[in-house]
Amino acid sequence: MPGLVSYFDLIAVAVFAVSGALAAAEEKLDMLGFILFGTLTGIGGGTVRDLLLQSGPVFWIASVEYLWVCIGASVATWFLAPFLQSAQRVLLWADGAGLALFSVLGAAKALDAGAAGVVAVVMGVMSASFGSLLRDTLMNRIPILLGPEIYVTACLLGAVGYATLTTAGVPVQAAMPLAIAAAFALRAAALIWGLRLPKYARSGASRP
Amino acid sequence: MPGLVSYFDLIAVAVFAVSGALAAAEEKLDMLGFILFGTLTGIGGGTVRDLLLQSGPVFWIASVEYLWVCIGASVATWFLAPFLQSAQRVLLWADGAGLALFSVLGAAKALDAGAAGVVAVVMGVMSASFGSLLRDTLMNRIPILLGPEIYVTACLLGAVGYATLTTAGVPVQAAMPLAIAAAFALRAAALIWGLRLPKYARSGASRP
Amino acid sequence: MPGLVSYFDLIAVAVFAVSGALAAAEEKLDMLGFILFGTLTGIGGGTVRDLLLQSGPVFWIASVEYLWVCIGASVATWFLAPFLQSAQRVLLWADGAGLALFSVLGAAKALDAGAAGVVAVVMGVMSASFGSLLRDTLMNRIPILLGPEIYVTACLLGAVGYATLTTAGVPVQAAMPLAIAAAFALRAAALIWGLRLPKYARSGASRP
Repeated sequence: MPGLVSYFDLIAVAVFAVSGALAAAEEKLDMLGFILFGTLTGIGGGTVRDLLLQSGPVFWIASVEYLWVCIGASVATWFLAPFLQSAQRVLLWADGAGLALFSVLGAAKALDAGAAGVVAVVMGVMSASFGSLLRDTLMNRIPILLGPEIYVTACLLGAVGYATLTTAGVPVQAAMPLAIAAAFALRAAALIWGLRLPKYARSGASRP
Repeated sequence: MPGLVSYFDLIAVAVFAVSGALAAAEEKLDMLGFILFGTLTGIGGGTVRDLLLQSGPVFWIASVEYLWVCIGASVATWFLAPFLQSAQRVLLWADGAGLALFSVLGAAKALDAGAAGVVAVVMGVMSASFGSLLRDTLMNRIPILLGPEIYVTACLLGAVGYATLTTAGVPVQAAMPLAIAAAFALRAAALIWGLRLPKYARSGASRP
Repeated sequence: MPGLVSYFDLIAVAVFAVSGALAAAEEKLDMLGFILFGTLTGIGGGTVRDLLLQSGPVFWIASVEYLWVCIGASVATWFLAPFLQSAQRVLLWADGAGLALFSVLGAAKALDAGAAGVVAVVMGVMSASFGSLLRDTLMNRIPILLGPEIYVTACLLGAVGYATLTTAGVPVQAAMPLAIAAAFALRAAALIWGLRLPKYARSGASRP
């Protein structure tokens, strides 16, 4: 189903590009800074996935439209950001949509390339998190995925969910939206109710 | 014209290696720190370009002289840095020369590998900016390309200029120096007169 | 000697994974943060080495056990960290063991792939330092290899030592443990006695 995949893929890239451009808005960069961070965040995760899988050219070199989508989304964000009440809140939600899409698409591409299940899950998590990791590291911020709320768990749910469903025989057309919805729902719940996993909080010194 | 290309290429690598070693001088690292940052900055951008293009081995693995140039330039900087009045100012100019050379050479290599125009421009900008991005991120500095003066625009001018000139039929021997000079002139003007693009400075809250 | 290499390799990956998970413990991340940083630190250096060498698939995609070792070592660190008196001190030693193993294994893999001597040395240093560089950069720390004590020199000793010994005809079974021991001994001496190379401490302004 290449049509479905690349349709979702373009949306995922655009959503992440918006989150990168919104981060540029917070840093008060110029228009090129918007395009730079929009593009880096939009294609960063998928680029690492493609380099590691070595199963063909990097997606945005093979299909130029991805770059234009990033540039278009970044420029649109430059003009639309003032109409958004709070860029930081919107950034979190755009990032959440991107992680849901990329975690499933990354796992799907790895499985299509013949990778083992655990490799596909790692690829899904990496595709979903590397773009925002790059964005936050270059801006000297604490990476969003180290924040207190559940983040990587949502990526994991998307990737593991998709791998499990397709292995169980669920057709791709159903497995993909289901896994994407599950990952997004978990991240959304984490943002709304502040869900978090227990932190490591023990130390040798404090033991009796 | 492989001879011309690799001659320019060696100079670009050396210039960026000096900028990396000067950054190591500011951080008061040891000799190996000079070599490490000189080499990372010198070959970082071209390495990413070659990995993404997948059109042959990485340049410094195929041609060992690039590594020796980086090591030599870093060691020379260790001994020569005291004679430079202000390392930071020299760093900015060395970095400017490197960005001009790499933006054009990166675009040229991508076009030679059959990439589309927009991909070649991205490759040029990436080759020119990734080395210094790596250098600044590892040193926990604000990346130079996020600074207030025009930076990415100069990379763009070099890459777009070269692609336009060669497409228009200008021979490589003329197009390459022209595009390099234009990119360097823009960055130099930005450093001298503090040229900058308008920053994003609107917010929903401040609208009437 | 593939058996020997991959046995050492698994240990090196596990040791670096522990150092990544210990860093996650210091940052009080959750279980998934442990696994994320354990895996990134464990496979980061070797991944860059394999991408650059382009001599086959990335090691942990070809052999799934490396991922399981990272996950297992990270989970074990979650439970065992409280029993360690001082995580930071243990982290330095685990990191030192990892650098000794990876610097030699990285150089060996590059030589096996037909790379030149200087390229093999760069690969050894890169394999040994990139995982911890990634770990520290993502956590917004000063990279351990920029710390005052000898670090890169120990990586160099391992890589140069192995290349020299094998070139001199010493069999791999002897050259590998010898070079690993030498690199670890130098790093251990640096940690115990605070050995350091002379820092760059001259400036044009302070000259008479």
